[in-house]
Amino acid sequence: MHARPSGIVTLLTDFGLADPYVGIMKGALLRAAPKVQVCDLGHELPPQDILTGAFFVAAAIGRFPSGTVHVAVVDPGVGTHRALLAVAAHECYWLAPDNGLLSPLFAGAAALDVRTIDVAHLGIHAESRTFHGRDILAPVAAWLASGRYGFSALGPRRPNPVVEPSWCDGPPRVLHVDRYGNLITSIRAQAFASARGVLLGGSTALRHDTYGDVQAGELLAYVGSFGLVEVAKNGGHAADALDLGRGAPVELLGS
Amino acid sequence: MHARPSGIVTLLTDFGLADPYVGIMKGALLRAAPKVQVCDLGHELPPQDILTGAFFVAAAIGRFPSGTVHVAVVDPGVGTHRALLAVAAHECYWLAPDNGLLSPLFAGAAALDVRTIDVAHLGIHAESRTFHGRDILAPVAAWLASGRYGFSALGPRRPNPVVEPSWCDGPPRVLHVDRYGNLITSIRAQAFASARGVLLGGSTALRHDTYGDVQAGELLAYVGSFGLVEVAKNGGHAADALDLGRGAPVELLGS
Amino acid sequence: MHARPSGIVTLLTDFGLADPYVGIMKGALLRAAPKVQVCDLGHELPPQDILTGAFFVAAAIGRFPSGTVHVAVVDPGVGTHRALLAVAAHECYWLAPDNGLLSPLFAGAAALDVRTIDVAHLGIHAESRTFHGRDILAPVAAWLASGRYGFSALGPRRPNPVVEPSWCDGPPRVLHVDRYGNLITSIRAQAFASARGVLLGGSTALRHDTYGDVQAGELLAYVGSFGLVEVAKNGGHAADALDLGRGAPVELLGS
Repeated sequence: MHARPSGIVTLLTDFGLADPYVGIMKGALLRAAPKVQVCDLGHELPPQDILTGAFFVAAAIGRFPSGTVHVAVVDPGVGTHRALLAVAAHECYWLAPDNGLLSPLFAGAAALDVRTIDVAHLGIHAESRTFHGRDILAPVAAWLASGRYGFSALGPRRPNPVVEPSWCDGPPRVLHVDRYGNLITSIRAQAFASARGVLLGGSTALRHDTYGDVQAGELLAYVGSFGLVEVAKNGGHAADALDLGRGAPVELLGS
Repeated sequence: MHARPSGIVTLLTDFGLADPYVGIMKGALLRAAPKVQVCDLGHELPPQDILTGAFFVAAAIGRFPSGTVHVAVVDPGVGTHRALLAVAAHECYWLAPDNGLLSPLFAGAAALDVRTIDVAHLGIHAESRTFHGRDILAPVAAWLASGRYGFSALGPRRPNPVVEPSWCDGPPRVLHVDRYGNLITSIRAQAFASARGVLLGGSTALRHDTYGDVQAGELLAYVGSFGLVEVAKNGGHAADALDLGRGAPVELLGS
Repeated sequence: MHARPSGIVTLLTDFGLADPYVGIMKGALLRAAPKVQVCDLGHELPPQDILTGAFFVAAAIGRFPSGTVHVAVVDPGVGTHRALLAVAAHECYWLAPDNGLLSPLFAGAAALDVRTIDVAHLGIHAESRTFHGRDILAPVAAWLASGRYGFSALGPRRPNPVVEPSWCDGPPRVLHVDRYGNLITSIRAQAFASARGVLLGGSTALRHDTYGDVQAGELLAYVGSFGLVEVAKNGGHAADALDLGRGAPVELLGS
């Protein structure tokens, strides 16, 4: 049984805010369902950066009302034969190209229903070869959010969606550097429970509860708001200080 | 007969997102009509750049529900005697200073109704000489979108609105460079129907349907999502590679 | 007697738009009250910059419908024992950390009701130590905006909220430089009534009504849209031309 639509659609893209693409995609949503409520999840993903997109997808899990439709567009393969996916997971709906962007949904053990959006069956004639966000994903999201179509009507089940391997496997690493210079790692709170801290780039960040627990200028490791271990510098910019960025390896410091 | 208001107002400005102007303008809209739905079309236009504003206006035509009120503010002449326009065109409403920003509406043969906003008649006392977006356009847009005033009540007909000549005439050229480095030209799909490609900056871009149809690193020309010919580099940044920007001349390559 | 909630919540943060924080905070608002209307006041405040935040708070006073809930998050002390405030002032509600961000509300003589948000009493268990915007302020704002709680139920009165002294006292200075290079000063319209202009950085800007009243390239001082004296350069960027920024001292030029 799928969640009842909340009427809310979120948008996550690499379109940036200096071109008309985001506004036009909102227009397409509103044309298909004028009462839908559109919420920006982010548009400043680095162009074509599927891994950062996946980080945002992971960050959105469980954070919106049940029945929210999340649309994610980072689509280097637009116009080729890559499929467009619709996924029911975590009591929400997720629409995106089948290129690994939704990997965080496939990494866990949660119940999933994965479909290929059947464009022909839905009667969609994409106006362009280069903007499927506007031409396909926006109307499908609007119809799903407004209740015009149920999830199962969007297309047939898809057995093996693309999964970005680095999302699910491999040694711990930095997933994202935020505006404050905090390094968000792939280490989950549970794995950190008995650790004393982390090692990264030759430096040690000891475990604390929050910034204020260390002196200004000191590094610390803590469980951040994503439920992941982060490394920060109190009153400073940890990524600059350590000269590290996304992908940098991180090691747990045993108890 | 004018379109029934959709209750949606879009905002297009050169205010940027680092100042309070966009938020304050939304406050003015909501004060005048709390149920209006506000949608950003874009706020990162280069300051005072009327031509890029006109490109966004063209891009919005036909993309929002019928009866949407589009407000565009790029207003180097604020506080002088330039008029403020209200235009009914393409089943929507368009409010902007009379400085060429709405040129794309005047370039075609579509039925138009152009008015001067009659501030005194509408009982508006602009609080400032420098922010007519907040003081005049926001309440007028809100009243129009909420049905408090019909379009014809906004002011008398205006015979000769300002038209940016380069919008309608002159040889083909680059209108906009987007975030991915794609060069969007002024050549319409129809004119491209029998062409083999385009010449620009001494390079040739041959006609293809979409990025994936050429090798990585190769240039291509295709009809993009605006219905205009674009030049891209598969997997690269065409504008950087060609060292070209807005205004660069483009030539059709005959069949 | 407090204003009836308008159902509108504004967000002002230093989160930037390249991280998931703004989207996640909107998700938290919508989870707590799906019908709330969220309006961005600004997210590009320089990180941890309480003074620029206070400038935005001042700019929002009187600009939104009565009963609007304004949430401001610039929170270098998150996770420490700083309180979270709820203030009723200027017919709106204001939620923020107690760190000076709301100073403009306390600078005037307006009637105020200041409370400490009583997290335990409201049954809130903050999920993180580092994102109280999501975990505490978002649900409180949503409950207040949707009428689930009245203002007085949020917590006990707080006698001495933190006030940023430079907001209320001291000699006139530049509060903000906007995107166009205009220098917005702390001098109010009333104080300017009989002045001939201002002196700053060794230059004189004479009083005029608006940009168009001086030659291109000339400086001018005028009462801007915030009700404060601004210094601009017609057709130019005053801050660059004068090499001045926030905090620069300004002197009134007597009549």
